[in-house]
Amino acid sequence: MNFIAAGIAIVGAAIGAGYGNGKVISQTIESMARQPEMSGQLRSTMFIGVALVEAVPILGVVIALLLVFMS
Amino acid sequence: MNFIAAGIAIVGAAIGAGYGNGKVISQTIESMARQPEMSGQLRSTMFIGVALVEAVPILGVVIALLLVFMS
Amino acid sequence: MNFIAAGIAIVGAAIGAGYGNGKVISQTIESMARQPEMSGQLRSTMFIGVALVEAVPILGVVIALLLVFMS
Amino acid sequence: MNFIAAGIAIVGAAIGAGYGNGKVISQTIESMARQPEMSGQLRSTMFIGVALVEAVPILGVVIALLLVFMS
Amino acid sequence: MNFIAAGIAIVGAAIGAGYGNGKVISQTIESMARQPEMSGQLRSTMFIGVALVEAVPILGVVIALLLVFMS
Amino acid sequence: MNFIAAGIAIVGAAIGAGYGNGKVISQTIESMARQPEMSGQLRSTMFIGVALVEAVPILGVVIALLLVFMS
Amino acid sequence: MNFIAAGIAIVGAAIGAGYGNGKVISQTIESMARQPEMSGQLRSTMFIGVALVEAVPILGVVIALLLVFMS
Amino acid sequence: MNFIAAGIAIVGAAIGAGYGNGKVISQTIESMARQPEMSGQLRSTMFIGVALVEAVPILGVVIALLLVFMS
Amino acid sequence: MNFIAAGIAIVGAAIGAGYGNGKVISQTIESMARQPEMSGQLRSTMFIGVALVEAVPILGVVIALLLVFMS
Amino acid sequence: MNFIAAGIAIVGAAIGAGYGNGKVISQTIESMARQPEMSGQLRSTMFIGVALVEAVPILGVVIALLLVFMS
Amino acid sequence: MNFIAAGIAIVGAAIGAGYGNGKVISQTIESMARQPEMSGQLRSTMFIGVALVEAVPILGVVIALLLVFMS
Amino acid sequence: MNFIAAGIAIVGAAIGAGYGNGKVISQTIESMARQPEMSGQLRSTMFIGVALVEAVPILGVVIALLLVFMS
Amino acid sequence: MNFIAAGIAIVGAAIGAGYGNGKVISQTIESMARQPEMSGQLRSTMFIGVALVEAVPILGVVIALLLVFMS
Amino acid sequence: MNFIAAGIAIVGAAIGAGYGNGKVISQTIESMARQPEMSGQLRSTMFIGVALVEAVPILGVVIALLLVFMS
Repeated sequence: MNFIAAGIAIVGAAIGAGYGNGKVISQTIESMARQPEMSGQLRSTMFIGVALVEAVPILGVVIALLLVFMS
Repeated sequence: MNFIAAGIAIVGAAIGAGYGNGKVISQTIESMARQPEMSGQLRSTMFIGVALVEAVPILGVVIALLLVFMS
Repeated sequence: MNFIAAGIAIVGAAIGAGYGNGKVISQTIESMARQPEMSGQLRSTMFIGVALVEAVPILGVVIALLLVFMS
Repeated sequence: MNFIAAGIAIVGAAIGAGYGNGKVISQTIESMARQPEMSGQLRSTMFIGVALVEAVPILGVVIALLLVFMS
Repeated sequence: MNFIAAGIAIVGAAIGAGYGNGKVISQTIESMARQPEMSGQLRSTMFIGVALVEAVPILGVVIALLLVFMS
Repeated sequence: MNFIAAGIAIVGAAIGAGYGNGKVISQTIESMARQPEMSGQLRSTMFIGVALVEAVPILGVVIALLLVFMS
Repeated sequence: MNFIAAGIAIVGAAIGAGYGNGKVISQTIESMARQPEMSGQLRSTMFIGVALVEAVPILGVVIALLLVFMS
Repeated sequence: MNFIAAGIAIVGAAIGAGYGNGKVISQTIESMARQPEMSGQLRSTMFIGVALVEAVPILGVVIALLLVFMS
Repeated sequence: MNFIAAGIAIVGAAIGAGYGNGKVISQTIESMARQPEMSGQLRSTMFIGVALVEAVPILGVVIALLLVFMS
Repeated sequence: MNFIAAGIAIVGAAIGAGYGNGKVISQTIESMARQPEMSGQLRSTMFIGVALVEAVPILGVVIALLLVFMS
Repeated sequence: MNFIAAGIAIVGAAIGAGYGNGKVISQTIESMARQPEMSGQLRSTMFIGVALVEAVPILGVVIALLLVFMS
Repeated sequence: MNFIAAGIAIVGAAIGAGYGNGKVISQTIESMARQPEMSGQLRSTMFIGVALVEAVPILGVVIALLLVFMS
Repeated sequence: MNFIAAGIAIVGAAIGAGYGNGKVISQTIESMARQPEMSGQLRSTMFIGVALVEAVPILGVVIALLLVFMS
Repeated sequence: MNFIAAGIAIVGAAIGAGYGNGKVISQTIESMARQPEMSGQLRSTMFIGVALVEAVPILGVVIALLLVFMS
């Protein structure tokens, strides 16, 4: 039963991270192309943002690993 | 049964956090590119906003961890 | 059975809070970038709004915690 | 069985409140930024609106609490 | 079995009320910001509209309460 | 079994009424703000429209009440 | 088993009627605000349209009533 | 088992008819408001269109009635 | 079992026909209002199009009737 | 069991054909209204396109008929 | 069991083909109306495109036929 | 059990291929109509793109065929 | 049981690859038509992008093949 | 049971990676076509972004492989 739980947890983690990161990074690239002189600042904000977005999914992956090796 | 519950909880936490954070951070980056002189204030508002968005998902992760180690 | 209920409750709480907060905060940031002289008033309205949005999800987290420790 | 019912009720209450409140408050903030001289009147309308929106979800939370402590 | 029914009924009532009220109130606020001299008439129409929208969800909450205390 | 049926019926009634009424009333408010001299005629049309929209959901609530008290 | 069938039938009837009527009536109100001199003709067309839209959902309600009292 | 089938058939018939009719009639009303001199021709086309749209859902209602009275 | 199959088949047939016909007829009415001198040709194309759209759903209704009277 | 399979196959065939044909024919009518001098060529392309779209759904109907008469 | 599998396979094949072909052909018709002098080249590209789109759904129909006659 | 698996695999393969190919080819046709002098280069890119899109669905069809003939 | 798992894995792989590749390639074709002098650079970026997109789905196909030949 | 879990995990990983990568890369290509002089910087940002997006799905694939070889 915990294997299924790990699978479900991975689904949420991957879709959440994929949606959030895709939105943040694609917006960064569009903004860099519109205002090249801001590209350094935008990229550093992007790194912070990606780290904040991935906090919960990485926790989800950790819980999924716990569930896999627990039985 | 509590393993499945932990998996379901992680799905909601990760998708909620991914959607909310992705929306907040991408909007911040777009606004920073449109008005560079506001970038400090926008970024500090972004940090507060991300913290407010992640409050409930982090609680969800805590509950998922409780469920994993409870059996 | 109450573990599953806690998991389901967390899903609703996290997605509801993530959607509502993400919408409120991203709109605040967009409006601050458009009218910088209103930023104080907008941010204080944002805090009130986030508190109002999170009222029901926090109650949902409380109920989930009740369900976890009830068995 | 009533635990599951409480979980389902919380899902509806949290998503309904999150959607409705997020829509009302984000629209208020956008309108305040567009017409700053109306901000007092808009904010008081927002408080009435949020109270009206949260009437049914709060009743849902009450019913969920009834279901949790009934068994 | 009636507990589950109460939970399902609350979901519909809360989502229906949240969607309808959120749409009505946010449109009212947007229209008040666009035409401030109409704000009294719009707000009174909003109250009538919210009452009409909440008629069926409140009936749903009543039926859910009937189901909870019927067993 | 009829309790579940009542719960399902309430979901449809509440969501249908919430969607329809929300659309009608919000459109009325937007049109009143655009053409204030038509506001009397629009509001009377809104009352007729809301009554027509709520005909079927009220019948659904009646059927749900029949199902609750039938067992 | 026929109770569940009645509940399912009500869901379809209410959502179908709510969607169709909401679309027709809100479009009528928008068109009346745009061309006030056509308001009589538009309202009579609206009544015919609502009657045509509600034909099938009313039949669905009749079938649901048949199912409730058939057992 | 045939009662459930009747309920499912009504759902499809009502939603299909509600969507199709709502789209046709609301478009007719919008076009009548834009070109009043075409209103006779548009309304007659609307009647033909609604009859064509409702052909299959009425057949679905007939089949649902067959299923109800067959057992 | 064949009754359920007939119900499922009606759902697909009604929704498919409702969507397709609603799209074709509403587009015809919009185009007739934009170019009145083309109205004869557009209406004849509409009749051909509706016949082509309804070919598969009518076959689905026939199969549903076969399933109802087969047992 | 093959009856259910026939019902499921009809759902896919009808929805696929209804979506594809509705899109093709409504686009044809819109284009004919925009450029009347192309109407012959567009209509002949429409016939080819509808035939190509309906190839797979008609095969699905054939398979559904095979499933109905196989038992 | 293989009958159900054939039914599921037909659903995917019909919806995939209907979506892809509808998109390709309607775009072709729109482009032919916008640039009549390209109509020959566009139509030949449309034939190649429809053949490429239908490759996988036709394979799905073949597999469904294999499943029907395998029992 | 492997028949159902083949059916599920076909669904994914057909929908994925239909969506991807429909998007690529319809975009190609639109671009060819906008810039006729690029039509050769666009069409050759379209062939490469369709081949790349269909790589995974064709693998899915191969796996489905493996599943059908394995039992 | 592993056959079903292979089928589910193929669904995800094919839909993910179809969505991602369709988006990348159609955007490339649109951009090549808008700026022909960049077509070489855009096409080489497209090849890298398609390879990056297909990394995870190809891994999914490999896992599906492992599941098919494992029993 | 762990095979199903691996299949579910692959679905999430592939769809998440396909959505995120498709969004990032297509945005990069659009931006490169709009501002060719930024193409080097945009492409290097794209590589970082794709690596960040694929972090969680690759972890999901690793967990799926663990689940396949664990039984």
